[in-house]
Amino acid sequence: MKRIFEIDPWKVTTHKFSTEDKRLQESLTAIGNDYMGMRGNFEEGYSGDSLQGTYLAGVWFPDKTRVGWWKNGYPEYFGKSLNAPSFIGIGITINGEKLDLAKVNFSDFTFSLDMHQGLLSRSFIYEGKGVKVKFEFERFLHITLKEAALIQVKITVLSGNAKIDFDSTLDGTVVNEDSNYDEHFWISRGENAAARTIKVETKANTYKVPRFTVLLKESLRHNGQIIRGDVTTDKAKLSEKFSVNLHEGESYDLEKDVIVVTSRDVKPDEQDEKAAALMKKLQAKSFAENLADHTAVWQKRWDKSDVVIAGDAAAQQGIRFNILQLFMTYYGEDKRLNIGPKGFTGEKYGGATYWDTEAYIIPMYLCVTKPKVTRALLQYRHDQLPGAYHNAKQQGLKGALFPMVTFNGIECHNEWEITFEEIHRNADIPFAIYQYTNYTGDDSYVKNDGMDVLVATSRFWADRVHFSKWRNKYVIHGVTGPNEYENNVNNNWFTNTMARWLLQYTLERLPKASKEAQARVNVSDKEKAKWQDIVDNIYLPEDKKLGIFLQQDDFLDKDIRPASSIPKDQRPINQHWSWDRILRSPFIKQADVLQGIYFLNDRYTKEEKERNFDFYEPLTVHESSLSSCIHSILASELGKKKQAVNFYERTARLDLDNYNNDTVDGLHITSMSGSWLAIVQGFSGMRYDHNQLRFNPFVPDSWDHYSFKINYRGRLIKGYADHKEIKLTLIKGEKLMVTVKDKKLELKEGETTCLKD
Amino acid sequence: MKRIFEIDPWKVTTHKFSTEDKRLQESLTAIGNDYMGMRGNFEEGYSGDSLQGTYLAGVWFPDKTRVGWWKNGYPEYFGKSLNAPSFIGIGITINGEKLDLAKVNFSDFTFSLDMHQGLLSRSFIYEGKGVKVKFEFERFLHITLKEAALIQVKITVLSGNAKIDFDSTLDGTVVNEDSNYDEHFWISRGENAAARTIKVETKANTYKVPRFTVLLKESLRHNGQIIRGDVTTDKAKLSEKFSVNLHEGESYDLEKDVIVVTSRDVKPDEQDEKAAALMKKLQAKSFAENLADHTAVWQKRWDKSDVVIAGDAAAQQGIRFNILQLFMTYYGEDKRLNIGPKGFTGEKYGGATYWDTEAYIIPMYLCVTKPKVTRALLQYRHDQLPGAYHNAKQQGLKGALFPMVTFNGIECHNEWEITFEEIHRNADIPFAIYQYTNYTGDDSYVKNDGMDVLVATSRFWADRVHFSKWRNKYVIHGVTGPNEYENNVNNNWFTNTMARWLLQYTLERLPKASKEAQARVNVSDKEKAKWQDIVDNIYLPEDKKLGIFLQQDDFLDKDIRPASSIPKDQRPINQHWSWDRILRSPFIKQADVLQGIYFLNDRYTKEEKERNFDFYEPLTVHESSLSSCIHSILASELGKKKQAVNFYERTARLDLDNYNNDTVDGLHITSMSGSWLAIVQGFSGMRYDHNQLRFNPFVPDSWDHYSFKINYRGRLIKGYADHKEIKLTLIKGEKLMVTVKDKKLELKEGETTCLKD
Repeated sequence: MKRIFEIDPWKVTTHKFSTEDKRLQESLTAIGNDYMGMRGNFEEGYSGDSLQGTYLAGVWFPDKTRVGWWKNGYPEYFGKSLNAPSFIGIGITINGEKLDLAKVNFSDFTFSLDMHQGLLSRSFIYEGKGVKVKFEFERFLHITLKEAALIQVKITVLSGNAKIDFDSTLDGTVVNEDSNYDEHFWISRGENAAARTIKVETKANTYKVPRFTVLLKESLRHNGQIIRGDVTTDKAKLSEKFSVNLHEGESYDLEKDVIVVTSRDVKPDEQDEKAAALMKKLQAKSFAENLADHTAVWQKRWDKSDVVIAGDAAAQQGIRFNILQLFMTYYGEDKRLNIGPKGFTGEKYGGATYWDTEAYIIPMYLCVTKPKVTRALLQYRHDQLPGAYHNAKQQGLKGALFPMVTFNGIECHNEWEITFEEIHRNADIPFAIYQYTNYTGDDSYVKNDGMDVLVATSRFWADRVHFSKWRNKYVIHGVTGPNEYENNVNNNWFTNTMARWLLQYTLERLPKASKEAQARVNVSDKEKAKWQDIVDNIYLPEDKKLGIFLQQDDFLDKDIRPASSIPKDQRPINQHWSWDRILRSPFIKQADVLQGIYFLNDRYTKEEKERNFDFYEPLTVHESSLSSCIHSILASELGKKKQAVNFYERTARLDLDNYNNDTVDGLHITSMSGSWLAIVQGFSGMRYDHNQLRFNPFVPDSWDHYSFKINYRGRLIKGYADHKEIKLTLIKGEKLMVTVKDKKLELKEGETTCLKD
Repeated sequence: MKRIFEIDPWKVTTHKFSTEDKRLQESLTAIGNDYMGMRGNFEEGYSGDSLQGTYLAGVWFPDKTRVGWWKNGYPEYFGKSLNAPSFIGIGITINGEKLDLAKVNFSDFTFSLDMHQGLLSRSFIYEGKGVKVKFEFERFLHITLKEAALIQVKITVLSGNAKIDFDSTLDGTVVNEDSNYDEHFWISRGENAAARTIKVETKANTYKVPRFTVLLKESLRHNGQIIRGDVTTDKAKLSEKFSVNLHEGESYDLEKDVIVVTSRDVKPDEQDEKAAALMKKLQAKSFAENLADHTAVWQKRWDKSDVVIAGDAAAQQGIRFNILQLFMTYYGEDKRLNIGPKGFTGEKYGGATYWDTEAYIIPMYLCVTKPKVTRALLQYRHDQLPGAYHNAKQQGLKGALFPMVTFNGIECHNEWEITFEEIHRNADIPFAIYQYTNYTGDDSYVKNDGMDVLVATSRFWADRVHFSKWRNKYVIHGVTGPNEYENNVNNNWFTNTMARWLLQYTLERLPKASKEAQARVNVSDKEKAKWQDIVDNIYLPEDKKLGIFLQQDDFLDKDIRPASSIPKDQRPINQHWSWDRILRSPFIKQADVLQGIYFLNDRYTKEEKERNFDFYEPLTVHESSLSSCIHSILASELGKKKQAVNFYERTARLDLDNYNNDTVDGLHITSMSGSWLAIVQGFSGMRYDHNQLRFNPFVPDSWDHYSFKINYRGRLIKGYADHKEIKLTLIKGEKLMVTVKDKKLELKEGETTCLKD
């Protein structure tokens, strides 16, 4: 754990600058606007250790993976989130000294992310020979004018005289940090000094993956007036220079406006014109006016989604930071996009889409965004079915296999133990259809496009199981469960359970599907009978003596001992132990059996939940960012309040407190919903299965009260709980019967319903 | 199966040239002299598809493996057998047309490897405009003057007049075919036109692996006289050109002499002088004289090791080809070397040493070479113990873990499922100490250096097992057995059995070790007691109902069905099936349980052997080159003569008949001993445990008779069997009691003992 930013309900601020925490600081000050984003790099450059990172949604490169021992069925390429051309650069020299916080003298450092609107500010006082200069930077990515980035720097000479040289840059000579053999992925397609643009294209590839062309345009303003410096260009680079002389007490404001267009939206030969038009639009308003527009939109988002926690500022800050980062990554505007594990905050893991979206993001987005946002995420998978069919075929299997990692539906992760073994995703992803239908009550998706998904994935499972004569049961061999600290195991309880759930749900929904969908999927009676046979006879390992489900065959053959027996200096084990030791150990990375109990929550008794929680949680090291939230929710349900709160704190402040010592690589975007789920599904006990909205709230001892908002079937509901009472307010929408602590209550528009605790 | 060379007892000859079989042809015409070797590439060059390959023993490069998902305990680098500078080049043009068999008209093609002495010959008649020219090439690598390669080309103009331009080359601009990102590993260290040398060095690396410097020197002779053409050089390249004009009926002989010295033996700054001296030595004799010297040494080798088979020329050719290729790869001259899976015939797999050496080569070399050759192979491992300690430490384990693949003792294979899971090698490698001691009766190794190996590996196993409270037994999780079509399994019977064997053998030998060794290894009573407890209580999975040992936990949970149920067009499965399908299938790559029964042959009853053979062999696809020989030997023992012969044919002609459709990549050097073992341990039933040499021969129906020779404890013995009698001749050495078909016989020097069948 490491906390480098101060506690504040609406700000992430530090007054310290430590070179060794530079990367961590950069991750935590990343900003985005669903279209693009960047780490908290410094505009003026920085010569010390740093991860320079700018990312454009949906812009990627298929990096070859055939290095080493390639086998049939392994993916051909590893899809890399590309480090995109950097456009924030404003090089500065003061009386000939280059401003570089790794080298110069400075004081009064402040770096702050305002969570109301994703505005990044930074200030410090530079001290040179006989001169003191205050620098104040502000930066945001426009939330409605997506292609626009706005940067402002205000320079005030506190003492002495200063000649300031500016060098505003666009730089396409960037490279991914994990680039093999320092390969560059961008090539220049021309620079235009007069227009202040550079155009770059991704390299050719042999995988028929479309190439991307990106045009970047910059323009400088002072006091609202465009100013023109001396422009020089080099391959994929542009530099605009000018100087000002400032006397003691004088100030100078410089605004850098940037437009970024990509071939995802604009054809390469139309990009120059389009960027010029967008720049005109941007510059029709001042920095302050643009910021006001931007902030207004953020205010609307917060109005529908803010979670208020009183009495614990750290918890309050954590949940807001997570909501902000999620919304800066994805707000459903572009159906071709999804939510990558690092969003716009780093390049590790590659890929755009994991099962995280369906398992952890959708349950939150269902409640805090309009249904169409979730439906866009469902549609994304439907649109990628051709890729999923391809993936199954690569393994010699029928039906469709959704990828573990992808940009376009085709698997692009290059570890076999994940690629074709961590296949539980192929039930978890369809499970989101169930979640959507269940929560919204809208069955139009599952009746139509959703049925294509259900049948395609069911066909995969029906081929992937085999019948064991030895057990007289259907079994599933060679998988990796959600607990990735086991590989190539047989009969993972979670996988078998979810496969069974999928077949059952498909059989149940199929007769209700539209005629067109039924004709399209064309499931024969024989096929249905086979699916039913698997549902009836699939092997689900358990230990009757202990009364628990078994994570996998022979799990008890391990050297079972609690994670608390691991010496502290060996945690996290994935940074201290060999992979061999981890694989053989009994220690669990993230919820596995418990993930299944979480998903199919209404199928298990409290006693079953309790026995499994008490057996598996002590073995769990929670080294996946996706672990704590599930444990928090189950702990809440089981009345283990203290544990529930501990797990909440971990999920809420995973990055802010760098719990897993890996936030330097970027934020854990897809697990950020976990803190929201821990509050709403955990502390407030919200459930929505069987068309019934239920709550069973408690308030953490250290909190005074908390509140949250959800939209539910056209309604906006506010939930509130303190140590004395529970209040539900139907802000908008038709009346609704809900259950609170087993009591039925009717909510009416504009009214608040109370329940004394 | 594909047979492109003709059947002949002492030659591998073809009269056909097919561009599509070029690579296969190159593999089968590879030659070597333990110091260096090369594929059967054409001297004049070839523009079609070809794998140009020259290899120098012990010269390698640590290629980085941190591409993709690196985890703790994975090796830092992948050791690559380097494609070395090519020195065979003699470019030829005839009246301006470049001689290139991919393009020119030619007839009467003959390509032949003489197995008496590893002499490669090639001839053909070129037909150009108004000219016919016969070309005859000969090439060999000198068996005593190791650094020398000799090439001769004889040109005869059959019709017309021919201007012949020669271009003799040395070329260090070579690259490994699997080089990542086309990386070159060699850099020029200067060319010397006058001395006709190039010097190259391997690139720097970050792994502290020594760099290699290689100097190549060429010289041309005509009729024994040195001739000097025009020399030009480029970076890492040298070219010597001259021309001759030949009239119809005229001939011209050109000899290219090459010396190759490396920094393994000669310091870089002494290489020029050394190469000059060696060239002088070479050129003190003519091509014919050098060839005669070379052949004489080969004759002596064959005298001690030839296997004669009458009545089956294909079988005869197969065994000789294998013996030749093995001896061309390794004959124990350099203790720093070992036997790589492809020898000098290709670059696939990388590395110099696998467990193949101990498991498959040593049992043959013990019998056909002097004991010091085997002892050198044992010593090789002892000398690499520091690397083995390093490997165990990387996994967080005690003791020493011999590498799966290495050049220097440090693991350099980059698949985790092999690297730290296929650990059975760590018992198989010490098992060679037992084999050596058992066969030679010489216990001086096991008492001294051998004890270091036994204790170091025993300590590894004692830490690698864990106690399962559930089974109340010691278990071994997370391994890959010899059957690499399973990964990360628990309680592989072979692994558990061999680990148990090792601990038992170490405990047994320890009290008899030298005092120095005992003091060095310093095994406490507590440690011994722990080892004994593991020996007594290790879990060895079996199915009592079927009466078989279980390859691993839950093996019977698979979809058990015979390999014969796989459609023929899907064989070999590793070229047709996804890795997922292979892993989940019941099909076995190579002997696993049966490998253990082969190793510890005296511990199991005939009934146990039979039940396991009958269960596992039908599941085995024999897609490892190491599979057939073990099955042949066991089939012989079980009286399954037809199967024994079938398996023999497959191991004997694996490459000649390209059974596994992968000989294009190079020969399966380390499995070539299998055919010898199938005859001597299989057909002749030789056993040597318990200080007793025994035979139990039969003769394949299709053979007339066969004979072989073995050295045994200072004696040279010839074994012979036909359909009527068995003859044993003690060619040299003290009298010896042997057992033949349960009869005790005394062998006396110079006498032949007969037993009628």
